[in-house]
Amino acid sequence: MCQLMGMSANVPTDAQFSFTGLVQRAGATDVHSDGWGISFYRGKGVQEFRDLTAGSQCQVARFLKQQSIKADIVIGHIRQANVGALVLENTHPFRRELWGKHFTFAHNGQIQGIQQQLQLQRFMPVGTTDSEHIFCWLMGKLDQKFEQPPTAKQLSAVIFELTRPLHRQGVCNFLLTDGDVLIAHCSNNLHWITRKAPFGKAELVDIDVTIDFSTVTQPTDVVTVIATQPLTANEQWQKMQSEELLVFQSGSLLHRFTPNMSVDTD
Amino acid sequence: MCQLMGMSANVPTDAQFSFTGLVQRAGATDVHSDGWGISFYRGKGVQEFRDLTAGSQCQVARFLKQQSIKADIVIGHIRQANVGALVLENTHPFRRELWGKHFTFAHNGQIQGIQQQLQLQRFMPVGTTDSEHIFCWLMGKLDQKFEQPPTAKQLSAVIFELTRPLHRQGVCNFLLTDGDVLIAHCSNNLHWITRKAPFGKAELVDIDVTIDFSTVTQPTDVVTVIATQPLTANEQWQKMQSEELLVFQSGSLLHRFTPNMSVDTD
Repeated sequence: MCQLMGMSANVPTDAQFSFTGLVQRAGATDVHSDGWGISFYRGKGVQEFRDLTAGSQCQVARFLKQQSIKADIVIGHIRQANVGALVLENTHPFRRELWGKHFTFAHNGQIQGIQQQLQLQRFMPVGTTDSEHIFCWLMGKLDQKFEQPPTAKQLSAVIFELTRPLHRQGVCNFLLTDGDVLIAHCSNNLHWITRKAPFGKAELVDIDVTIDFSTVTQPTDVVTVIATQPLTANEQWQKMQSEELLVFQSGSLLHRFTPNMSVDTD
Repeated sequence: MCQLMGMSANVPTDAQFSFTGLVQRAGATDVHSDGWGISFYRGKGVQEFRDLTAGSQCQVARFLKQQSIKADIVIGHIRQANVGALVLENTHPFRRELWGKHFTFAHNGQIQGIQQQLQLQRFMPVGTTDSEHIFCWLMGKLDQKFEQPPTAKQLSAVIFELTRPLHRQGVCNFLLTDGDVLIAHCSNNLHWITRKAPFGKAELVDIDVTIDFSTVTQPTDVVTVIATQPLTANEQWQKMQSEELLVFQSGSLLHRFTPNMSVDTD
């Protein structure tokens, strides 16, 4: 299994604090030592970092913990390999271009036999993980469904419908972004928190680091953080329901799709 | 204009020394200050770094100069913007997946009106540079031409034929890799050097840094470095001919396409 981290904000915001907590779980407080990666969106552009070394021991991760990289959307991942060898091409997040947008995907879970079930079209995996296979399948389906770039609502409705059956076949928590919305899809473990004024203090669960968000924010800032398990000890995180899909834009919840919902994808 | 750097090696090799010289030209010894990027291939996987800050002043570049990241193939780029705003999505190298391989492209030059001339198919630019447009056009053409992944010779012959007309329309020096071969395409400025035993000392042109390659190599190592302008002062670099295309694999020259050559692309 793996752990995920995501961020969506209405102003370019650094994810230093959350990343610091996350990478502790990559070999220090938890076992996710098989490589890591993080993608920062600034507008349509993506700055990505990844490495095969355990995040808690990695020079690149250590460097990043000291950097304030401001981003609108972030997706991070620490890997505990189950399917796919310990090679760079199997580290998440994965990225593909569609409609002139960079799509980025990271996955936590495992679905047996998915590579035989989900037929690929335009996009092909570079590595051998079930995760990248699912992503490529999903991107191929989106390409097939929409001739023109869809709205955020159309896009997320179709992703919700397409990925619904995956829950019955295994564990499929994922984060996906097109640089506009951040989509969180929960099988069993995803938590989220939206921070806005009045901002307070927060302390990480995994390492003795505290931040006073009121000293680094403006009153109008809205920032949502998503993580497999809550990253802070003193804040109230919301646990996503199983089979729920949430869509965030500019830091706020834009759409919520729930398990029994009937969704129009036309 | 911009400057390019590439490396192909028969064993995972770090490009620290060459990168150190290159990024000096990004605001210290030369004017290429509008962002930079570098992609390291290890097998099929890619570790990439990019930033909008001038390379000579950039924290990420400074960090990288201290890291020994071993790679089979490297493509680096420092940008002096002419077409396209100073945004992250306009930094090179650009990357797309085709046939389950990561293709990476970086360009030096400018071709007026190319965005109106070259019709895109499957791949679309995320940014607004002529460079990414050329790359997306080329990738679309490759996709159309080959149903199955071609051999290195087929691939490079088709790229040579496709990009030949570009020389008549402007300056188009580029580096392209699929993780197997490194292709160098010269309009006016590209130089290369192959280092093998007996290895000697080299000193950078742009900064007072010297290396004794005999202390960091094995006798069987073969490493080719390509750069817009020679990176070292005391070695003999070869200048590519105008309209020439060279293909390197595992550090050695594999194919050479010259301007008057008749090429079979079937």
